[in-house]
Amino acid sequence: MKKGVMRPGHVQLRVLDLEAAVAHYRDLLGLIETDRDSQGRVYLKGWTEVDKFSVVLREADSAGMDFMAFKCVSEAVVDSLRDELAAAGYAVEEIPAGELNDCGRRVSFLAPSGHTFELFATKAQPGKWGVGKLNPEAWPRGLQGMRATRFDHCLLYGIELDKTLELFRDILGFDLAEQVVTPEGKRVAQFLTVSMKAHDIAFIEHPEPGKFHHASFYLESWGDVLRAADLISMTETSIDIGPTRHGLTHGATIYFFDPAGNRNEVFCGGDYHYPDHEPVTWEAEQLGKAIFYHDRVLNERFLGVLT
Amino acid sequence: MKKGVMRPGHVQLRVLDLEAAVAHYRDLLGLIETDRDSQGRVYLKGWTEVDKFSVVLREADSAGMDFMAFKCVSEAVVDSLRDELAAAGYAVEEIPAGELNDCGRRVSFLAPSGHTFELFATKAQPGKWGVGKLNPEAWPRGLQGMRATRFDHCLLYGIELDKTLELFRDILGFDLAEQVVTPEGKRVAQFLTVSMKAHDIAFIEHPEPGKFHHASFYLESWGDVLRAADLISMTETSIDIGPTRHGLTHGATIYFFDPAGNRNEVFCGGDYHYPDHEPVTWEAEQLGKAIFYHDRVLNERFLGVLT
Amino acid sequence: MKKGVMRPGHVQLRVLDLEAAVAHYRDLLGLIETDRDSQGRVYLKGWTEVDKFSVVLREADSAGMDFMAFKCVSEAVVDSLRDELAAAGYAVEEIPAGELNDCGRRVSFLAPSGHTFELFATKAQPGKWGVGKLNPEAWPRGLQGMRATRFDHCLLYGIELDKTLELFRDILGFDLAEQVVTPEGKRVAQFLTVSMKAHDIAFIEHPEPGKFHHASFYLESWGDVLRAADLISMTETSIDIGPTRHGLTHGATIYFFDPAGNRNEVFCGGDYHYPDHEPVTWEAEQLGKAIFYHDRVLNERFLGVLT
Amino acid sequence: MKKGVMRPGHVQLRVLDLEAAVAHYRDLLGLIETDRDSQGRVYLKGWTEVDKFSVVLREADSAGMDFMAFKCVSEAVVDSLRDELAAAGYAVEEIPAGELNDCGRRVSFLAPSGHTFELFATKAQPGKWGVGKLNPEAWPRGLQGMRATRFDHCLLYGIELDKTLELFRDILGFDLAEQVVTPEGKRVAQFLTVSMKAHDIAFIEHPEPGKFHHASFYLESWGDVLRAADLISMTETSIDIGPTRHGLTHGATIYFFDPAGNRNEVFCGGDYHYPDHEPVTWEAEQLGKAIFYHDRVLNERFLGVLT
Repeated sequence: MKKGVMRPGHVQLRVLDLEAAVAHYRDLLGLIETDRDSQGRVYLKGWTEVDKFSVVLREADSAGMDFMAFKCVSEAVVDSLRDELAAAGYAVEEIPAGELNDCGRRVSFLAPSGHTFELFATKAQPGKWGVGKLNPEAWPRGLQGMRATRFDHCLLYGIELDKTLELFRDILGFDLAEQVVTPEGKRVAQFLTVSMKAHDIAFIEHPEPGKFHHASFYLESWGDVLRAADLISMTETSIDIGPTRHGLTHGATIYFFDPAGNRNEVFCGGDYHYPDHEPVTWEAEQLGKAIFYHDRVLNERFLGVLT
Repeated sequence: MKKGVMRPGHVQLRVLDLEAAVAHYRDLLGLIETDRDSQGRVYLKGWTEVDKFSVVLREADSAGMDFMAFKCVSEAVVDSLRDELAAAGYAVEEIPAGELNDCGRRVSFLAPSGHTFELFATKAQPGKWGVGKLNPEAWPRGLQGMRATRFDHCLLYGIELDKTLELFRDILGFDLAEQVVTPEGKRVAQFLTVSMKAHDIAFIEHPEPGKFHHASFYLESWGDVLRAADLISMTETSIDIGPTRHGLTHGATIYFFDPAGNRNEVFCGGDYHYPDHEPVTWEAEQLGKAIFYHDRVLNERFLGVLT
Repeated sequence: MKKGVMRPGHVQLRVLDLEAAVAHYRDLLGLIETDRDSQGRVYLKGWTEVDKFSVVLREADSAGMDFMAFKCVSEAVVDSLRDELAAAGYAVEEIPAGELNDCGRRVSFLAPSGHTFELFATKAQPGKWGVGKLNPEAWPRGLQGMRATRFDHCLLYGIELDKTLELFRDILGFDLAEQVVTPEGKRVAQFLTVSMKAHDIAFIEHPEPGKFHHASFYLESWGDVLRAADLISMTETSIDIGPTRHGLTHGATIYFFDPAGNRNEVFCGGDYHYPDHEPVTWEAEQLGKAIFYHDRVLNERFLGVLT
Repeated sequence: MKKGVMRPGHVQLRVLDLEAAVAHYRDLLGLIETDRDSQGRVYLKGWTEVDKFSVVLREADSAGMDFMAFKCVSEAVVDSLRDELAAAGYAVEEIPAGELNDCGRRVSFLAPSGHTFELFATKAQPGKWGVGKLNPEAWPRGLQGMRATRFDHCLLYGIELDKTLELFRDILGFDLAEQVVTPEGKRVAQFLTVSMKAHDIAFIEHPEPGKFHHASFYLESWGDVLRAADLISMTETSIDIGPTRHGLTHGATIYFFDPAGNRNEVFCGGDYHYPDHEPVTWEAEQLGKAIFYHDRVLNERFLGVLT
């Protein structure tokens, strides 16, 4: 949080069938539906998140990610980062307050990787779902499905990893926590954090810009990962891989797909990061183990990404 | 235990390099080496097993299973079952006491599936490893690797499932706990138990007799399954699949290979059985889910078996 | 199961307020309510139990246990054991089929400890709740509260432990799995099993006959034990002790109370038993550790028992 | 990290018998011994900590805490905070580099609560123990005992909570994450964080200044908490309470004592914090549940603190 950016604030995903998607994210992942807007978009959040929403679903003709936003500690930080972005040559767009329900103005820009990001500081804050701020119970009754606790990060595929790292590190105050490097010294994956988390955003080198690999949600335990895998089968949801562990970050994970084909991850555990930690490096020759620590090979589906 | 057969007593596996195999079963699975004999065979057991050994490794030119033995409650039971086997037309061989160190006489016979089984009642019983019978601690200090608690069961591939079921059910007192049945009503997999366990021995229909799929070892928890998977990677051991869950028995599992190519399983949890339980049936059309509950497809390796 | 006794079949508990008790056993423990009878008794079972019920609640002026029953493999076994009991001098009562809904005739007798036990072989068997016998999912959707899987055992306080052991061992075919012995060699606690479980019934020496310590229910994992403890707090249920581990049997456990004051246990894990296992012995000087392995002292409440 | 303070860097504890203490922290907690100095002090760290040490043991005539230090992102931050402390009237002492082996200069001051704290920015950084920065395995082989991953926080008892909060919040950049408040509105416990952790330092109101309640270490899972409790019994270590959960922070925990009587905690899980989170408040009437979520009463030992 060197520059005042706190955390992933929301991600807007395109889905093909809105109600099928809501059933997936609400009933299977266990996110809480908090609102719908006049455009027909649906807002959801994990139960531990204090802000009103962290996932926005928009019905469209193709799946993928519209944008991902980071919450800043103050509007002044948003102003300051907007000016730094503009000074660095980024075309910055201001989206007025209210374009997303109960969310303040957002500053939007296109990263060199080809993805749209936003910064904002203001969002309605109803608090954690089902537990108050006074004598809160350990967890709320009535959670559904996987009981995902929060939207955690995205993994994106795209171009220009070096310039994207400069943007996130030098302007937005992220650290490079983990990376994959080829024998020639080229960084082909970068996991960036603005907190103690092993990653708040991650990028993998890809010939096309702006591709979406997955949106990830946090679970409390490895037991919850098994439960999530069971629910994936019980609901005949398309699974990619898991339960397994990543080498990168060491989180314990499952990949699966929403009805539109957007990949989701649920995971638990993994490494923590402080600003004085040197980056962890995985050699590209070990990419299989870096991604899927147990199988030690990539499955074919891992390479599949959406616009 | 209707007829006095208690449990899987031991399995003798052929390995290509004895010391490599010992390192695998002792240091990675965490079995306890308890003896070696004049033939060069190595004896091991899980720490919770009271008998002297449950795994015997024999160096040979090809991998696979020599035989699997069941322990009976008394020598009288062994006599009685030997007579019943003989009366049913099985060629029964008596192996004298001492052929395996500290093990009494064994009665050996060839099942219709093409596998050699043994019955015995006497084996040295040093008790659980590292904890005594007096004020025993919860677990012993100094366990290695996966800390496998016991040899649990084998899965075998072979012919003549019906006749094999008759042998195990009618003569040896096992129950059919779970089965896979084709649309035509043919049973192509049968999981048999002589206890509360979901399976003490299992068979899958295969055109060749006497094939070995895996020997399985019990772990205490799903956390131990993750730890086992991590150790498989750290030791560059060949993995087959997992961590995952089976549909059949619902145990949480990993399949991997010893250095000779014998498949091992470590697993935890799963269903229990009583004699008044009707068999659980999986339809052959659901075989993928029955075997690998999360992926819901068989991997190619699952079909690989050894002589 | 040497003599054909399979498992604890049911326990009938007296409660002071029937609906409060139903809310406790159904909504907190997560048992399934399966019937009510013309006497007003309520029938429940754990979701993995195939028989129609395992817990019967009866409203009365005082809490405690009316009787505990064991299911036998056949009516012939019930006849045979009834005759053996009578021959040994026990006053045996036949309770006609239907006295408990959908349960066959029961043979009732008073053990030397002062507790009433029953034997039966016939009970309606609707199968596991929420999962069928065909392609069964890993667990059913819609479970409540602690999701207790089955009624597991009772711990009773009473007199005449030696005679009670003789009854259970010599007539009913149980094994002595674990015991607590004083320096003078007197057995003051005995844990008996008729299966692979560490105990199907347990007794602790007490100056008064026929006292009830707890009825115990099985959970799937240590994570479920934490969840159960959380639910105990969230519902303001009276807790006795835990989460902790027992030294005896090594199960991981919580003790708490139903609204009438009957103690319940939920637990997971623990040792397994085979007929050739020698009993585990705890010295009475180590009783604190034998009962509560972590605290290593008895709490005052442990000594509290009901008629 | 608003002001550049990153995390708890080390705690120096007084112990009565140095080798007994080393055995406790190294062999039971599983910390790594990294150095000893000319004063005889012993340095240790958790395996995930990149800095050389986080615990310093000093043999003395009485147990307790000498001081706790926070690591800052740079020497410039240390200078700046020193100046702010001095300007606020705190007597600030500079301790030269090398007074602790391989640690840079430290700035020391006495908080209003009566405890000595330090700030520093430089310490030798050998990286995580047993896993490198290149293709790191999930965890190192050879860990001992509880396998504590890191020194996490301290809970201290003392006076002047309001002034102490002002110091930590306004000068050092901590947030008030959780608090206990009396009906009269007096804050009697405050849990402060400078990161995503639920607490990096916590204070409870006490009539005497400068008391030490516990030093806490992080474990990976609830399964590790059970394992830790088992080890406490196996080593006949004095236990305070647990396994249980806290209401405050919701971490799953055990309290126990080192041979000198210093209380330790090992815990896992619990809430996370961001700067825009409002503090969680527990009412003092609910203090039992706030501290021990399951028992909902304080045990007598909880009130015991050391100088």
